[in-house]
Amino acid sequence: MFTLGDRTFTSRLLTGTGKFSGTKHMLAALQASESELVTLALKRVSLNDPADDLFSPLKAAGFQLLPNTSGACTAEDAILAAHLAREAMGTPWLKLEIHPDPRYLMPDPIETLKAAKALAREGFIVLPYIHADPVLCKRLEDVGCAAVMPLAAPIGSNLGLETREFLRIIIEQAQVPVIVDAGIGAPSHAAAAMELGADAVLVNTAIATAADPVAMATAFKLAVIAGRMAYEAGLPGQHQQAQASSPLTDFLLST
Amino acid sequence: MFTLGDRTFTSRLLTGTGKFSGTKHMLAALQASESELVTLALKRVSLNDPADDLFSPLKAAGFQLLPNTSGACTAEDAILAAHLAREAMGTPWLKLEIHPDPRYLMPDPIETLKAAKALAREGFIVLPYIHADPVLCKRLEDVGCAAVMPLAAPIGSNLGLETREFLRIIIEQAQVPVIVDAGIGAPSHAAAAMELGADAVLVNTAIATAADPVAMATAFKLAVIAGRMAYEAGLPGQHQQAQASSPLTDFLLST
Amino acid sequence: MFTLGDRTFTSRLLTGTGKFSGTKHMLAALQASESELVTLALKRVSLNDPADDLFSPLKAAGFQLLPNTSGACTAEDAILAAHLAREAMGTPWLKLEIHPDPRYLMPDPIETLKAAKALAREGFIVLPYIHADPVLCKRLEDVGCAAVMPLAAPIGSNLGLETREFLRIIIEQAQVPVIVDAGIGAPSHAAAAMELGADAVLVNTAIATAADPVAMATAFKLAVIAGRMAYEAGLPGQHQQAQASSPLTDFLLST
Amino acid sequence: MFTLGDRTFTSRLLTGTGKFSGTKHMLAALQASESELVTLALKRVSLNDPADDLFSPLKAAGFQLLPNTSGACTAEDAILAAHLAREAMGTPWLKLEIHPDPRYLMPDPIETLKAAKALAREGFIVLPYIHADPVLCKRLEDVGCAAVMPLAAPIGSNLGLETREFLRIIIEQAQVPVIVDAGIGAPSHAAAAMELGADAVLVNTAIATAADPVAMATAFKLAVIAGRMAYEAGLPGQHQQAQASSPLTDFLLST
Repeated sequence: MFTLGDRTFTSRLLTGTGKFSGTKHMLAALQASESELVTLALKRVSLNDPADDLFSPLKAAGFQLLPNTSGACTAEDAILAAHLAREAMGTPWLKLEIHPDPRYLMPDPIETLKAAKALAREGFIVLPYIHADPVLCKRLEDVGCAAVMPLAAPIGSNLGLETREFLRIIIEQAQVPVIVDAGIGAPSHAAAAMELGADAVLVNTAIATAADPVAMATAFKLAVIAGRMAYEAGLPGQHQQAQASSPLTDFLLST
Repeated sequence: MFTLGDRTFTSRLLTGTGKFSGTKHMLAALQASESELVTLALKRVSLNDPADDLFSPLKAAGFQLLPNTSGACTAEDAILAAHLAREAMGTPWLKLEIHPDPRYLMPDPIETLKAAKALAREGFIVLPYIHADPVLCKRLEDVGCAAVMPLAAPIGSNLGLETREFLRIIIEQAQVPVIVDAGIGAPSHAAAAMELGADAVLVNTAIATAADPVAMATAFKLAVIAGRMAYEAGLPGQHQQAQASSPLTDFLLST
Repeated sequence: MFTLGDRTFTSRLLTGTGKFSGTKHMLAALQASESELVTLALKRVSLNDPADDLFSPLKAAGFQLLPNTSGACTAEDAILAAHLAREAMGTPWLKLEIHPDPRYLMPDPIETLKAAKALAREGFIVLPYIHADPVLCKRLEDVGCAAVMPLAAPIGSNLGLETREFLRIIIEQAQVPVIVDAGIGAPSHAAAAMELGADAVLVNTAIATAADPVAMATAFKLAVIAGRMAYEAGLPGQHQQAQASSPLTDFLLST
Repeated sequence: MFTLGDRTFTSRLLTGTGKFSGTKHMLAALQASESELVTLALKRVSLNDPADDLFSPLKAAGFQLLPNTSGACTAEDAILAAHLAREAMGTPWLKLEIHPDPRYLMPDPIETLKAAKALAREGFIVLPYIHADPVLCKRLEDVGCAAVMPLAAPIGSNLGLETREFLRIIIEQAQVPVIVDAGIGAPSHAAAAMELGADAVLVNTAIATAADPVAMATAFKLAVIAGRMAYEAGLPGQHQQAQASSPLTDFLLST
């Protein structure tokens, strides 16, 4: 169990709603993941167009919604999107994403900090998506963010923990939960993030674009639990020299 | 489910019995792992000294035993050990280990192939522990091995899939099950091996030397299931360029 | 040759002056490196204490000095240090370092951008040391920095290109030179940075703490040249499948 | 300088002759590399067809030729090729390659050892191309090989030191020179192999398929020298924690 803002969650797997082939498949996968916190872009809330609306079915299925500001290029954009999202979805929870770069969708540290400060002050529960930058993470914590969401690798790259050394430092220093976001392309990546001591991970692309999203969601669910258990159970260190696991049957040599 | 020799197994996690702090802890961890096939050194069978004997309690707990020839430096040593093990444990199953190098315990390809050929001909169900050498794996398959057990990294190193590119080739070419052995130090490593398409993994050190071996065994159990599910569910590829997971809220830009 | 600020340099290896066992050894190593641009902390300029002074001998040896603001925790600190350095060393060149975190010395993106903007406006030739954050790099370029200096790994870690995927993006997007700084622990790391297309690298710890700093400096000099040549000569891509380099002597098979 | 068989070489860069766009370009690149030992397939010796012959121009240019048995699938094939090569090229030097697998061209440990033993006994200077298998390397040394040539990655893959942990062990244990072969795709890879303590590297594909093979050959030449110098100069270790390279200007904090 871990606590984010004013809520305690059992699942350490956060999920997203992009790239699924349809709402029905999405819901089935999210339910299989046992995720409790699900992010969706403001654009996906179409109160007037039920066919394109994700809000109502997700709400009905009992998920805690985490609106995101995907598409925002400045703090101003993001603050506007946050207000619209709060109104449309009735929640102060917010995944703050500001990425002026359309090609790699890398987050902007300056605008993100500016928006986070303003929105936290207004009472939003702010979860900022950012580079795996240890100093920036401390600053976001200082302005009142409920968690930090450093990236593992570029969004959608499926490359895994490219930022491992920096995640290690962020986790060591953070006083708020650390949720590893972006680039997690396989259950082994999610497990590795949890083994490092991350509090949670967010996975979207790898589930949504799998040949079988329900099975993949289940796989991620198990991997996140496994990684957390291993972290708590005390992983042994790495060695460059072999260490026999079976006792050597030395008497053989003298027979 | 996968088939090895004449048996079908539900669990794809093989375990070992070395390095545990005591028999009771070992049994608890192995049971938590839900492993069905457990390797033990011939030396651990002390029919005359019950206090030091692992055979009886493992047998009583229902595990399929997989005697190993740990300590053998030559094919001759290993064949002798195999015969003693078959007699002592009443099973033709055999994990064939021949490592003349006492420091890194690296397997010997020449002696291993020689012993495997002889033992397979005698009716042993031979599972050879070997380097991640694709040609050697085909040759071991050709002489009748029931599976191949390429190493991920030096035994006890906990370094994970150092041999990833070669495991990929071995798995692509093998007609017998591929069980990744040695060097798997964390559940994320086990999941990664399964995601590559391995049929199973063998884990010993990382469970036995964890602060909480029962929890660690459970974590490995889940990770192996997760990795296999992901493999079957169709993992998406890796990209160097970002791919947005949330649709960009482009209207924001024009407001 | 590459141009930084108003100067053109032949050498793409920048060096530092910390951690050497003495001034004489330092000078010998820097000369062997053929580096033209050498960074030193303001503290190392002791006009009143010649024994502890690096400024005069470096100047006499013909190096272009690059004062740094090591130790600064805020933009204010750094701006003060920049002014003192300009006065003491008579140069507007500045390696801007702001790291509030004493343990990992990670750079602060917010304060660095703030100080960079102010100092560039004042006419300093600003080379900021920063995280490998593509958006921050663009912003530093926009406020007038002469180059960007993203880190490869934590300072002094010798871990090499941990930030490879992000350096690739930074290099692709930058309009100013990209100088990879921090974490380069071996000539192979320096070559790899150059092969990615970096304009230069800065190496200090790995040279200063080598058993033989002069030889190590020479090794880095050659590796930087090699990496750049390879980048310009067009490195072939990577493949998962083998490609024979020798033509197979197929007639053998039919003899 | 290092000694192989009965000769001492200044250059630690071995090269190959495959995949070049023409003999003239090949010669220019090999000369730029300053390589002294050059491998070529038996097939490339066409005494009757001067247009397709590499032997005469290489010989005329002063290279020590290293015929290889590329294409051999068995020890028998390789021994036949060795005899033909010795006769055609007038040299007992031999790069022994036996790869029954046409897709990945992985070497066969069993047949290679068998052929190496026979050929060494006949007076050949045998350099076997093999998997990075530490025990196999010792055995090849024991039967009289002049060096061992473990692979870094699949031939032509350009993936670099995939077998790093095993190369480290091989180098530690070998009494004959260790020449890293196959998979070296960039000067940084060659430097890294030398930094590990390899005696030499063999590079072919990365030079031959570069846009500018002469420049690439020069880059590899420098990288190999750099890597060796760094190895001899004593590379410092890696750390997970930062270590400041500039002394922190602490007085700033109190101003």
